[in-house]
Amino acid sequence: MSPVEIEARVIGVLGGMGPAATADFYQKLIQATPAKTDQDHLKVLIYSNPHIPDRTAAIRGEGPDPLPALVASAEALIRAGADFLTIPCVTAHHFFEGLQAAVSVPILHLIRETVAALGVEHPALRCFGLLATSGTLQSRMFEAKFQPQGLTILTCEPSVQDTRVMEAIYAVKKGESLDGPRHLVREAATHLLDRGAEAIIAGCTEIPLILREGDLPVPVIDPTWNLARAAVRYALAAGPHFGARRSCYKDRG
Amino acid sequence: MSPVEIEARVIGVLGGMGPAATADFYQKLIQATPAKTDQDHLKVLIYSNPHIPDRTAAIRGEGPDPLPALVASAEALIRAGADFLTIPCVTAHHFFEGLQAAVSVPILHLIRETVAALGVEHPALRCFGLLATSGTLQSRMFEAKFQPQGLTILTCEPSVQDTRVMEAIYAVKKGESLDGPRHLVREAATHLLDRGAEAIIAGCTEIPLILREGDLPVPVIDPTWNLARAAVRYALAAGPHFGARRSCYKDRG
Repeated sequence: MSPVEIEARVIGVLGGMGPAATADFYQKLIQATPAKTDQDHLKVLIYSNPHIPDRTAAIRGEGPDPLPALVASAEALIRAGADFLTIPCVTAHHFFEGLQAAVSVPILHLIRETVAALGVEHPALRCFGLLATSGTLQSRMFEAKFQPQGLTILTCEPSVQDTRVMEAIYAVKKGESLDGPRHLVREAATHLLDRGAEAIIAGCTEIPLILREGDLPVPVIDPTWNLARAAVRYALAAGPHFGARRSCYKDRG
Repeated sequence: MSPVEIEARVIGVLGGMGPAATADFYQKLIQATPAKTDQDHLKVLIYSNPHIPDRTAAIRGEGPDPLPALVASAEALIRAGADFLTIPCVTAHHFFEGLQAAVSVPILHLIRETVAALGVEHPALRCFGLLATSGTLQSRMFEAKFQPQGLTILTCEPSVQDTRVMEAIYAVKKGESLDGPRHLVREAATHLLDRGAEAIIAGCTEIPLILREGDLPVPVIDPTWNLARAAVRYALAAGPHFGARRSCYKDRG
C-alpha cells in the first residue's frame, strides 16, 4: 500500500445474533470485496456477542431491553478501531435509533440498504412477502421503510408465523439439521405467494441460511447480502470527511 | 445467566490471513460450541486484518516483518475485551514467541493443539505428510513440535511445493473457483503418500477449504478444527486465575 493512499474504513460488525447469521454476513463481506490477494481485502472487526438479550422477547415486552448490551458491544468495536458499524440481525434494528444516538460512528441500516438495492435491481416489484421474526413484524420496521416508497409488505397470518417462521428461525439458532427449518420456511413462503407476494424477503438474518435465490418461483431478497455490499462500498468510499485520513498502516497495524 | 455463574472467557481471533480461512475458523468455533440457543454461544472477537504483511515473504527475507502489525491487531482485540487469542494462520506462528512476549493475554498455539489432539485421536500414526506454505516449511515449526513426540514430518519436494502447494494456497486467497486448487493439493498429497505419509496435515489454514477428511485414503488432519476445539475448551474452562472473575455480563455487555 502506498503511504499516500487513503485507507479504507474499518468495518465493524455487531454480531452474534445469532452466530451462524454473523458467519454468513462475514462470508458475504468477503464475497462482496473486489480482491486478488489477502492484502486487497478490507479490515473487519467482528464482535460476536450471543449474550445480547433476545430481541423479539424484548419487543413483545417479555424480556430485558437489549439496548445496553448493544451499546456496550458497539463501544468495544469502536475501541478496537471500527470506523462504522453494521448489525447482521434484522430484529435488532428495532433498537437502531437508540443505538445510533449512543455511539460516535455511523451505523448502516439493513432495511434502508435493502430498499435502496430494490430500487435499482427490482424496480417493477411492488408487493413483498416478509419472512421475519414476530418482533420485526410487531415493530413494523419494514413497513416504515417500504411504504413511503409505495411498496407493500405482506406478512404471514399469526398461526403460520408462530408454527412455521419462528419455529424455523429458532431451529437454525439451535444449530441442528437445516432440513426441517428449510421445509417450514418454504411452507410460509408459499402462504405469502398465495396472498399475492411478488417476491419474498428473507427478513431475518437466519433465513438466508435456509432460503436462497432459486428456491422459489419468485425472487428471494437477501438483506444480509444488501448490507454486505453496502458495507464494502462505504468502506471503500473515502468521503470528504475521511479525505485527510491518509494511510496509517504502520500505526494501526 | 445467573449472577454467580462464572463467565466464559472471550475468544480473540487474530485473523484475515486470509479472510476465507478466518471465516472457516469462525464457523468451526460455532460448530465446536455446545449450544441450543444464541445465548449458549461464546463471545468471540475477530479482527480480520488482511493488511498484515505476507508471512512467507518475511520468513524468506523477501518482505517486511509482520510482527508489528500482528502486535497492533492483538492489542486492538485485547482493548475490545479478548481474554485470550487464537491465530487461524499457520505461517504466522513463526512469529508466535515474539507476539506472545509482546501481549498481556495467552495465545493458543495451533500446532501444539494439533499434536495434543493427535495423541488422543490418532495415537498409532507416526509419519505425517505436511501441506503448508514454503514459509512454514522453512521455519520448521511443525518439526519443532512433532519430533520431540517421536513423530516424523514429510514435506513436498521443492518443485511440487512451488507448483502445487503454493499455487493452490494463493489461488484460494484470490477467492476464485476452488476446483483448480483442489486438484493441485490432491496431486501434492499423492506425492506425500508415495513418500510414505500415513496421514496428511492440512497445515495452512487455506488447505481445509480445499481438502477434507474423506478426500484421501488416509486421515486428513485439520489444525483449524483442532484450534477451534481447543479455543472452546479454554473459553469454557474457568481456571483458578479466572475463578474470581464472576459473571459481569451487565458490565461487559
